[in-house]
Amino acid sequence: MRDEDEKFMRLALELAKRGEGWTNPNPMVGAVIVKDGKIIGVGWHRKFGEKHAEINAIEDAKAKGYDVRGATMYVTLEPCSHWGKQPPCADRIIQEGFKRVVVAMEDPNPLVAGQGIEKMRKAGIEVEVGLLEEEARKLNEIFLKYITTKLPFVSIKLALTLDGFIATETGSSKWITGEKARQRVQELRRKHMAIMVGSGTVLADNPRLNCRLENCPEKVKVILDRSGRVADEMRKGRKFRLFEDGRVIFFTEKPEKFKGIAEAYPITEPAKILKKLGELGIDSVLVEGGRIACQFLSLADKLYLFYGPKLFGRGIKPFECLKVENTKEAPLLRIESIERLGESFLVTAYPGW
Amino acid sequence: MRDEDEKFMRLALELAKRGEGWTNPNPMVGAVIVKDGKIIGVGWHRKFGEKHAEINAIEDAKAKGYDVRGATMYVTLEPCSHWGKQPPCADRIIQEGFKRVVVAMEDPNPLVAGQGIEKMRKAGIEVEVGLLEEEARKLNEIFLKYITTKLPFVSIKLALTLDGFIATETGSSKWITGEKARQRVQELRRKHMAIMVGSGTVLADNPRLNCRLENCPEKVKVILDRSGRVADEMRKGRKFRLFEDGRVIFFTEKPEKFKGIAEAYPITEPAKILKKLGELGIDSVLVEGGRIACQFLSLADKLYLFYGPKLFGRGIKPFECLKVENTKEAPLLRIESIERLGESFLVTAYPGW
Repeated sequence: MRDEDEKFMRLALELAKRGEGWTNPNPMVGAVIVKDGKIIGVGWHRKFGEKHAEINAIEDAKAKGYDVRGATMYVTLEPCSHWGKQPPCADRIIQEGFKRVVVAMEDPNPLVAGQGIEKMRKAGIEVEVGLLEEEARKLNEIFLKYITTKLPFVSIKLALTLDGFIATETGSSKWITGEKARQRVQELRRKHMAIMVGSGTVLADNPRLNCRLENCPEKVKVILDRSGRVADEMRKGRKFRLFEDGRVIFFTEKPEKFKGIAEAYPITEPAKILKKLGELGIDSVLVEGGRIACQFLSLADKLYLFYGPKLFGRGIKPFECLKVENTKEAPLLRIESIERLGESFLVTAYPGW
Repeated sequence: MRDEDEKFMRLALELAKRGEGWTNPNPMVGAVIVKDGKIIGVGWHRKFGEKHAEINAIEDAKAKGYDVRGATMYVTLEPCSHWGKQPPCADRIIQEGFKRVVVAMEDPNPLVAGQGIEKMRKAGIEVEVGLLEEEARKLNEIFLKYITTKLPFVSIKLALTLDGFIATETGSSKWITGEKARQRVQELRRKHMAIMVGSGTVLADNPRLNCRLENCPEKVKVILDRSGRVADEMRKGRKFRLFEDGRVIFFTEKPEKFKGIAEAYPITEPAKILKKLGELGIDSVLVEGGRIACQFLSLADKLYLFYGPKLFGRGIKPFECLKVENTKEAPLLRIESIERLGESFLVTAYPGW
């Protein structure tokens, strides 16, 4: 029974992941409906503002001619009990006559927080909570941070040589990692609502900072431009590829330089930048600029360190703002996984501080 | 049949590995004798100067009361055809009446080089060569280099933070990696005849540089001490743990300082140091000193890069002697494997240049 339950919940988690990049700042959710041991409907939350996973699964079952009365629903997040952009799923589940609901995790959203579960239990539904909870929490780590703190989930992405450089002394960094690693970066871009770089990167490389995967939403591009150098160049007529799609937001000491040409806020302190991004509804930011990474290190929730099979000997270091004298004072990371990507590899780590 | 052959050869390779550290500068060799599908004897080369794997396997079979006549021998390296410290194994195999011999690889030793195989074939034995050859070559990569070049196999071992430092700016490096990684270093020490460090390491840490695994032979300790600083300290009465076991060899500009207290050679150029070590019968050297690693980088055969889950931001870099201006000029490595070791991990790589 437990094994069967796990199998269906794993499927629900996989379905949930199909919404990656599209549901933010809402969670990814997947649902599977099972009757007499058979899957009769599946659904996932496809896009922010659209129908929830539970409803999509119910509609899927009905479209196939099944009666969901007496069935079990596996859902990766507690069904909502409040009216948001959609009517409460818990009510619909009760109304449809489900016998049992298996929930991976409670909704940390203070507007739900167990009330959906309670409502269903009161209506006589057998509700189990906590199956594959760890996986479900990891899946929605962005949502979990944002809903509880109103601050975006901050990931730092760097491409390093095996001896830890992000560029040579002359600034050369194309390419430290290989094609597969760069493809993986696109997946990270899909996962995050915003991509952040410094003005140096914009001026040097004129990147588009978009997500080049098929089926990937437009990204918010956040540029740290203390002295307004990008605005200066724009006024001289230089075109930046940044503006080809998605919202572009500058943080600067010189907001007046951006007047009429781009959205800009007079904020330069990292913690305050994150607070502002949270207020703007941005639940996640991928810090891609090498030189700005160190400023955000103490605020980071996750690190994606890509290593290419090269040695530079000398060059630009990513975390020079740190001053560690003794090994015991060194910021500690908790390595979650190491992934080979062709000739490169990716170390995914969480701060251990 | 092929599957069966592979199974027995894999066992022979595993047996061979039991001699690791003990057979140098001879190869590790394993042998398995099979008759009517059943293993009737196993053997491996246990120690330099002692009996070869083939003979140990034959004696094992006989001790158990088996007749090896008509049997098949699986051996990881071509049986020798010449008189060395032991009589030729090919002759013995012929004499014992083996029907078939499966050999993983030809002996690259110019004194053998196919002659053992030829001798057995001429005697009417069915000989097959090349089964699991790649694995056999990797197993004996040290022997292969030494026998063909008379130069030791050079491995560089470093413990790095995730941002590529081997110590803080103040020289603190204890510990970057964890217990499991340090245990793995002991295994590397077992594999290499000699361990090399600079005098700075000796003066600062007074390491014993031994192999602390059970069943591990004494190590040759090679110290690069250009100005004879260790000799100076010894004359002042300081005791170094280096001398507690194994041979200690200094390379220095001041050999006179070592007169009467230690073996020393007036050589400081890396390529010449390796030549001398080869002449001294040392087939492999593990370069452990951080600061000397860069000097040996272009001569290295293998890199063992241990990463601990820490960030230093600034500090001592291992390969500062390199001057890479453009990513295209960067020394390229070929990553063989990535091994998790508790909270640390090990990247094993070969030079790609």
